[in-house]
Amino acid sequence: MYSSNLIPVKNALKIIRNTKMNFYKEYIPLKDANMRVLGEDIEVLVDVPPFDRSAMDGYAIIAEDTSNASSSNPLYLEIIDEIGAGTESKCTMSSGKAIRIATGAPMPLGSNAVIMHEDTELIDNKIKITRVILPNKDIAFKGEDLKKGEVILKEGQILGPHYLSVIASSGYNKIKVFKKPKIAVIITGNELVEPTTDLKPGKIVNSNKFAMKGLVEDSLAFSHIIHCEDDLDKMIEKLKDCTQKYDVVITTGGTAISKGDVVADAVNSLGEVLIHGVSIKPGKPFGFGIINDKPIFMLSGYPVAVAVQFDIFARNYILKMQNITKEFDLIKCIAGEDIKSAHGKCNIIRSKLENNIVYPIRTKSGINKSIVMSNCYIFVDEDTEIIKKGEECNILKYSSFKVFE
Amino acid sequence: MYSSNLIPVKNALKIIRNTKMNFYKEYIPLKDANMRVLGEDIEVLVDVPPFDRSAMDGYAIIAEDTSNASSSNPLYLEIIDEIGAGTESKCTMSSGKAIRIATGAPMPLGSNAVIMHEDTELIDNKIKITRVILPNKDIAFKGEDLKKGEVILKEGQILGPHYLSVIASSGYNKIKVFKKPKIAVIITGNELVEPTTDLKPGKIVNSNKFAMKGLVEDSLAFSHIIHCEDDLDKMIEKLKDCTQKYDVVITTGGTAISKGDVVADAVNSLGEVLIHGVSIKPGKPFGFGIINDKPIFMLSGYPVAVAVQFDIFARNYILKMQNITKEFDLIKCIAGEDIKSAHGKCNIIRSKLENNIVYPIRTKSGINKSIVMSNCYIFVDEDTEIIKKGEECNILKYSSFKVFE
Repeated sequence: MYSSNLIPVKNALKIIRNTKMNFYKEYIPLKDANMRVLGEDIEVLVDVPPFDRSAMDGYAIIAEDTSNASSSNPLYLEIIDEIGAGTESKCTMSSGKAIRIATGAPMPLGSNAVIMHEDTELIDNKIKITRVILPNKDIAFKGEDLKKGEVILKEGQILGPHYLSVIASSGYNKIKVFKKPKIAVIITGNELVEPTTDLKPGKIVNSNKFAMKGLVEDSLAFSHIIHCEDDLDKMIEKLKDCTQKYDVVITTGGTAISKGDVVADAVNSLGEVLIHGVSIKPGKPFGFGIINDKPIFMLSGYPVAVAVQFDIFARNYILKMQNITKEFDLIKCIAGEDIKSAHGKCNIIRSKLENNIVYPIRTKSGINKSIVMSNCYIFVDEDTEIIKKGEECNILKYSSFKVFE
Repeated sequence: MYSSNLIPVKNALKIIRNTKMNFYKEYIPLKDANMRVLGEDIEVLVDVPPFDRSAMDGYAIIAEDTSNASSSNPLYLEIIDEIGAGTESKCTMSSGKAIRIATGAPMPLGSNAVIMHEDTELIDNKIKITRVILPNKDIAFKGEDLKKGEVILKEGQILGPHYLSVIASSGYNKIKVFKKPKIAVIITGNELVEPTTDLKPGKIVNSNKFAMKGLVEDSLAFSHIIHCEDDLDKMIEKLKDCTQKYDVVITTGGTAISKGDVVADAVNSLGEVLIHGVSIKPGKPFGFGIINDKPIFMLSGYPVAVAVQFDIFARNYILKMQNITKEFDLIKCIAGEDIKSAHGKCNIIRSKLENNIVYPIRTKSGINKSIVMSNCYIFVDEDTEIIKKGEECNILKYSSFKVFE
């Protein structure tokens, strides 16, 4: 049987971290890969540019023709062809000739420099040049951006728009990425109904399902949200089904005095409960277990506790399954008021940071509104009972949870 | 006819900002509203909690019964019923009685306090109480979280998971949000093909379409990406079609020496070109125009210029259409090398920030790879020609472009 002794937050995190984690990869079309995580190294398959090309709108010339050109000794070159991007010239250059060329068009055979349009004067079918142009001027050389065989991006890279562009240029139309984990969220509670203005006696709105869908989305994963009554047999059935079909299961609620701790009992009967009760406030009843090699995060029913438990215990695990390693980005700032803390517990206090000064939002624990009034948590460790106004404290900004490139 | 004189960046931004902007709103299911922008104030429709409820697992009692209770004078109350969350008790309390109650269950008629489970001892069908409990203890009162009629969120709020939870509790199942703009991206260039390792002569991979799809997604908008040859008539046709069906049009490329400046000419023939050429490097050929009241952002063909032009001119406009106001979040840091800048132009230099020191990525302008090697832009204004190693400079981190709650 599992124990219900409270364990310190850091022990709980260690247990979760040490649980064997399953990684999955899949091939997807490159166009859908923004904000996905690369599951392979990208080796460049083609030189970029694939040929020597003009870096300017102008004229392809033989640089040596211009060696004596100046205002007092202008040079005239005959225009023998014109190349736009995407086409090639059939002509071969020889001394005294020029070919009009667009940015990006391949350098014609025999040419070795480009003179910018602005540096020439067009007279009939000739251009007048009054300056010396050195060989290689304004040519983008084959392979100078990406060299065939070069490893340009490494497995684990979070992909942004420009990464896709570079991967496309490297010759890939689809790529291997880490699979987004599929997360089943089982919301328990007989009292929960859909949002309505006509609540029957004893019923409340199932608000957790909306928060959970968003939290899973913010963790770049897929959610499947179901409801389960506070009933041990039904919970066992749902857990059995979900641990077969999904990569992770998250539950909310399920501590009903009349029925016992339905969720933990159900997990215990199918697998193993590794954590049940953590010295954290709010969120003490948090549990974690394993069924069929799949992790089960057992969260509270109260929205505020759900938020804290998800942020502290579940979010980074889900990201890690996609090979995104995030640590808590604790920063120091100044307490704007005295902050009292429950001794022996890690207190995670919803707070508002303004100009480097942080103010706790003082509400009862059941006040969901406090989450949207706050923008950070103050972290108070187990040994601290009070932080005085003006003293330093550790905070974790909500914005630090976001994943970006 | 439009002029091609270069205008300063800040003038270009002013022209874009002063263009009449169209806002659209729509109703969507609340569950899909994570990361959307609220298009209405949210007035609470039902009290939350909707009834006085227990904040603890314990026993509902009449507080006055305990007024003399102590270890030496224990009180015994008879348990007459049990209420789980989601149900009501049919019993009415009277002195000497207690009702077992779950967290979240409605307070029974006649009770006025809850004593926590841990503070009692169960003996047969009675509980033993050895302390005084004050009235209202551990009750969550009707409306104490959300009060009916209260405006809890304002139009323009970017919605995160917990906002959805609060809106659900307030009684809403769908809400009005700003519509995501539909953005047509017209990629021009006869030389462009899909990613392949078998490039025909003169052809290159259409990498911009991948970057553009991601950039539009990062701006929380929908993209529709099409290709157009470098041909004036075809471009006019596509622009006509896209300005009817989409909210914004973005073009890339279209300056083909053999054909003239196809895109700007096409915009000019259907509407008005307001900007054509900006004193910015890279990205000088940037254009902006209006057709059928719809904005047209004309970007370059080179990926690096596309990135800069999108970031400086287009991104914040697209966000603003969703009522998200972003300013450039310029921060100061120290130049790790001498940085030379083209005089008279705003230089936007791809750079790498490391420990508050910034190093420009030194590559030719056509080197797409530089975007993924960098994490910020150094901004050098028109009047500055050199920033010496060790001097302060202004940078814009790529991460600052992201939108979060």
